[in-house]
Amino acid sequence: MKLLYPTSLVLDPAKITGFPTLTLHPYDVKSPTLPSEHHDAEILVTWANSKDNLTYAVKNLKDLKWIQSLAAGPNDVLSAGFDASKVKITTGSGLHDKTVAEHALGLLLNAARRFYEMRDYQLQGKWPGHLGGPQPDREKGTFRTLRDARVTIWGFGNIAKSLTPHLVALGATVKGLARSKGVRDGIEVFGEDSLEDILKETDALVMILPGDASTKHALNRERLGYLPNHAWVVNVGRGTSIDEDALFEALEGEQIGGAALDVFETEPLPEGNKLYGAKNLILSPHAAGGRPQGAEELIVENLRKFLGGQELKNII
Amino acid sequence: MKLLYPTSLVLDPAKITGFPTLTLHPYDVKSPTLPSEHHDAEILVTWANSKDNLTYAVKNLKDLKWIQSLAAGPNDVLSAGFDASKVKITTGSGLHDKTVAEHALGLLLNAARRFYEMRDYQLQGKWPGHLGGPQPDREKGTFRTLRDARVTIWGFGNIAKSLTPHLVALGATVKGLARSKGVRDGIEVFGEDSLEDILKETDALVMILPGDASTKHALNRERLGYLPNHAWVVNVGRGTSIDEDALFEALEGEQIGGAALDVFETEPLPEGNKLYGAKNLILSPHAAGGRPQGAEELIVENLRKFLGGQELKNII
Repeated sequence: MKLLYPTSLVLDPAKITGFPTLTLHPYDVKSPTLPSEHHDAEILVTWANSKDNLTYAVKNLKDLKWIQSLAAGPNDVLSAGFDASKVKITTGSGLHDKTVAEHALGLLLNAARRFYEMRDYQLQGKWPGHLGGPQPDREKGTFRTLRDARVTIWGFGNIAKSLTPHLVALGATVKGLARSKGVRDGIEVFGEDSLEDILKETDALVMILPGDASTKHALNRERLGYLPNHAWVVNVGRGTSIDEDALFEALEGEQIGGAALDVFETEPLPEGNKLYGAKNLILSPHAAGGRPQGAEELIVENLRKFLGGQELKNII
Repeated sequence: MKLLYPTSLVLDPAKITGFPTLTLHPYDVKSPTLPSEHHDAEILVTWANSKDNLTYAVKNLKDLKWIQSLAAGPNDVLSAGFDASKVKITTGSGLHDKTVAEHALGLLLNAARRFYEMRDYQLQGKWPGHLGGPQPDREKGTFRTLRDARVTIWGFGNIAKSLTPHLVALGATVKGLARSKGVRDGIEVFGEDSLEDILKETDALVMILPGDASTKHALNRERLGYLPNHAWVVNVGRGTSIDEDALFEALEGEQIGGAALDVFETEPLPEGNKLYGAKNLILSPHAAGGRPQGAEELIVENLRKFLGGQELKNII
């Protein structure tokens, strides 16, 4: 049995041993073809593949039974045209928790401490004195620190669970919002029926929603209107979960404090898009994840399950 | 006995009760005078006072016995000319640990995640694609994440102790550098005799040194040379602890990765100063602290000690 693994990240094949019937073969994810001697591969691990490469795999890997993507949301694989009745697809959910959590924390602190505004002054050779020196401490109606800040995380999966302890350690009060309510890792997660009440009591909203039809424009004009005027929106989930036109209006009209976006409806954000110049908008180029952690361990776990006939982890 | 307290921050006199002989009186720290009926005050609490105001206090508060500054480094009070034989001075050390730690963490993440560079692209309406998408994971000779990063904190007092757990939680390996070696809060703190060895193994150097003669240009040309080419310098202590000319050369020559400075030898940094445009320099306008936390508790503790004839906390 053949497994093809990508050379687009550092994977250590020595960590994927102990399967006597398995052979491992590296491949170039940006190539428009795959070597003909590997067209009998049954397992394909994907990471940052080109569209051509995946299209070629659909047409030529006739024995393919399982694709292990290392992306949390493998939209590329899902839209490539693999036959869902023959090919199982598993995601890299869990491999990006720590990187995305760290980046999200950085965006929150960038917003709170106004690093983006300091940069604008620096580039003009000016001292941003209004942002330094003696400052009001946790003034009502501001978001200047995570200490005593009310942070709402919308989409409360593994990334949220990874982010939350850092926020709590800095003194924030964290609540969750998700389809199903409950207490997760000690944090109260509210259902979307509480959305209006929760958004009204939010200083920073961190969105970590997946990008599917059900989350399209989850943060729309109406819901943006629930947020206090000083509240920040941070999105490290998927760009489609925010109505960008409504967000732009909320920013320009100072109906919210600002937005730090790592994801956009269209990426790269096209030149000339009005969001580049929107007031208090921090742009990050889908940089939060992009560095899977522990890919070999996930592959090994799923190989065991695959060979043992068990249900795979992170199966779609 | 009269205590004058500043109105330059929100202090709650109701938290400073229980001293029958004491009366509390607010005063304006920016006024060039103090009310004549309070010239008999024995205790003065200072925060962001104007130079004129302190000079007036020196000349007119003839019964003054104790000044409680709320600043961690009260250079303003020390240089105002109070008679050290009559007036005890205590600092606000400890009131700024959490705010400075949060700001320092933000600067580290700004550096690692390249938010300043993303901002430069955004302002030009360009997508900083080279900073996003699939990225190398913890590549040697880079500082792109706190995970597995070697962070050295130079000056290992209360702020360092407050900052360290956040860094450790994000996966960093933290070492300390200080005049006296030892283990503090579980972190190994090295003496300055180990400085060369430690700097050579540093991905990010966080400086939290006080601003006195002994720390003047502690980070000089020679010591900058010990740092790896990718290492970042973050300074949230005092600007005098870095030789800015040497730092500028190290930045422009790409001998270090970058510098995030909250403090400068001269503040505000004068217009036209070359540091504004230095390569990979993040400028923050002495914004890390500026928001004392728990001032009333410190005042109460020191009032007890003052009235009880004990040595005051944070005495200089």
